[in-house]
Parts: sequence; C-alpha cells; structure tokens
Amino acid sequence: MNQEYPSTLLERAVKEFSKLPGIGRKTATRLVLHLLRKSEDEVESFSSAISTLKREATYCKECHCISDTDICPICANPLRDHSTICVVENIQDVMAVENTMQYRGVYHVLGGVISPMDGISPASLNIDSLVRRVSEGEVKEVVLALSSTMEGDTTNFYIYRKLQQHDVKLSVIARGISIGDELEYADEVTLGSSIVNRTPFIGKTI
Amino acid sequence: MNQEYPSTLLERAVKEFSKLPGIGRKTATRLVLHLLRKSEDEVESFSSAISTLKREATYCKECHCISDTDICPICANPLRDHSTICVVENIQDVMAVENTMQYRGVYHVLGGVISPMDGISPASLNIDSLVRRVSEGEVKEVVLALSSTMEGDTTNFYIYRKLQQHDVKLSVIARGISIGDELEYADEVTLGSSIVNRTPFIGKTI
Repeated sequence: MNQEYPSTLLERAVKEFSKLPGIGRKTATRLVLHLLRKSEDEVESFSSAISTLKREATYCKECHCISDTDICPICANPLRDHSTICVVENIQDVMAVENTMQYRGVYHVLGGVISPMDGISPASLNIDSLVRRVSEGEVKEVVLALSSTMEGDTTNFYIYRKLQQHDVKLSVIARGISIGDELEYADEVTLGSSIVNRTPFIGKTI
Repeated sequence: MNQEYPSTLLERAVKEFSKLPGIGRKTATRLVLHLLRKSEDEVESFSSAISTLKREATYCKECHCISDTDICPICANPLRDHSTICVVENIQDVMAVENTMQYRGVYHVLGGVISPMDGISPASLNIDSLVRRVSEGEVKEVVLALSSTMEGDTTNFYIYRKLQQHDVKLSVIARGISIGDELEYADEVTLGSSIVNRTPFIGKTI
C-alpha cells in the first residue's frame, strides 16, 4: 500500500503529468483531480487528442513544420511568397511570426540551434534541406529569425557560410528597443544596435 | 486553414490542455509540443493513464476518497484507528494529512464545504453518510479539518449540529502560528487563537 496516494491509478496519472516541464507533483495532482471531475466523454476527448496528435501528425516535407498533411498549409498556399524563406528554431516561432500578420513568405524550421554544449551539431538540424531549397533557385531571400543568443548567432553564421555561394539575399530580423520600452532601461547592446540600424522615419513609428 | 496553428491536430490537443486550470494557450502549446517529442509509447502511457483513471477509479464506500477498490486502503487497514474520523474537504487534504504521518485514524471526504454563493448546499456534500457512520456507534471522535474560512466554519457548525445528539467527541484542528513563522508578521486572529489555545510545554516545541 502506498502511504501517500489512496489509489495507484491516481498515482500513475499524477506521475505522468509530473513528467511535463514546469509541472510539479502538487500541480499534477490538481490537474488530474480536475480531469477526474469532468465527464467520461470530456476525459476521453482530452486523452485521445494527445494520442491522435502523436499518431497522425506529421512534419511538412518542405519546411519541417508540424502538419496534418505531407505539405503544410503555409507551403501549399499559392498566395504565399515562395521566394522568401524565414528560418526559425521551432514550431512555436512559426506561430509567433504568423501572429504578427506581417510576413507573407514561407518558413523553414531548423528544429533547434547549434549548441555543442547540448550536443546539437549542424548535422542534427534541418540545415541541409534549407541549402537544398535555396539551391533549387527560386528563393530570393532568406530571413534569419533565430534567438539573439550565442547559439543563435553561431547558427546564423553557419547558415551564412553554407549559403554564401548561392545567389540569395540573406537578412536577419531587426534587433532593437521593444515597442513600449523605455530607453533608460534598455541594455547597451540592444540600444547600440537600434541606433546603428536606425530606419528612415516615415511619419509614424510603427 | 487556420491562420495560427499549422495543424488542426495540434490545435485540438492545445485546446484540450488549455481547459485545465491555470494552463493558458502558450503553456498548453509548450506542453503539447513537449509530448510530441516523446516516443509513441510514452505518449500512449500518458494518455492511457488519464483515461484508465477516469474509467476505473472509484470512490471508497466508507470515506468517499478516491480508490482502486470499493473500500480504500486506509479504511480497509485493520491497523488504523477506526474510532477516529478526520473530516476533510477533498482528496488532496487526505494526502496532506497522511503526509504528516501524525494521524492513524480514518477519514471522511465531504467533497467540498457549504457555500450558498457557489450553490453548494449540505445536501450536495457527503454529510449524511458521516452521520450514518457516527450513528453506527463505533466512532469515538470526529476531527474537523476543514479550511479556516467562513465556508469551513459554517460547515463545521452544521456538522456539530448534526452530531450533537450522538455520543461522540467533536474536535477541530489547532489554529495558530505556523512553525517557522515570526510572531510580528502573524495576523491578530491567528495569534490570538494560538494564545487562547496554548498547550502545556513539554520540554520541546514540536
């Protein structure tokens, strides 16, 4: 008999929830007991959503984003600009850029950034397939939208070296003061970068 | 095509996770994508733990705690003191009291506290079955361990009235300064209660 959990089924469910990032044992217990108060249909819908996703979701053969089909809706959309590829780290970043509604090109999901400390080498990322897409000739611009970290910069440089011999414009998203931020609280590197990369004033800020 | 989610399967899983208390859309996405990186077996184990719990877990016929069997391990344990019943609000509270390892009696889970504002009347709680357990005559003491809120106090008083005609000792867990707390930061009601209910000093504090 387990001293702590009155039910082994409860214990098993709590253990599974505790494996999720940021979910401790107490939160896991709260979530599981919340689910337990729901109807059987609702719980079934919850658990089947997860297992169906794992079984049926696939990755787009073009951009490696998660997709229900071989080619994701963005890559399959003829209205998107297929000559511009935005390189991002993961699927969340695709969603973040999509949410801005400022980008009409396509994407390329690397699946991470180069990080020798974590054992992530260029070979374990989707870089070769990016080079292949560019070498096919239709791509005019590659926009690097990776995190502004040492790993992100390393990856940017690696991609720059790989694409050097190709006739493609390489750009990087602007680094600068966030909208709504006050100058006095910005770090010097960001503020410096936003001064160096100042843009023409066109009568409005955004 | 959904603007935001590149996959409807992903969207469905995120929606299910977002229904959980305290989990927003961003956290849900992070959790789902974390699960997606796990093996199919691990994901199956996660989703089956939840649905099995809902399908198979039952509630103890004696104390209403969650259980794998008709009678929970605590109620079925002959080494526990069946003449003392600790009345708690929910299953988490059973686990909290068990963790103290200071209690060897049995429990009674009310399933909430009386709260007319939230539509919780005495009839929707497991109070009748508590009265029935007491009226069977073997119970010597009922320990009320409900939250120290107005709803908890109301419920305590309701149970007191219901058990008045029975020959049973009714006690309530001690309210006082938490161990490790400093006196100057304690609220007056708690400090006052801990002075009124002072206990004989037996050479050590805990």
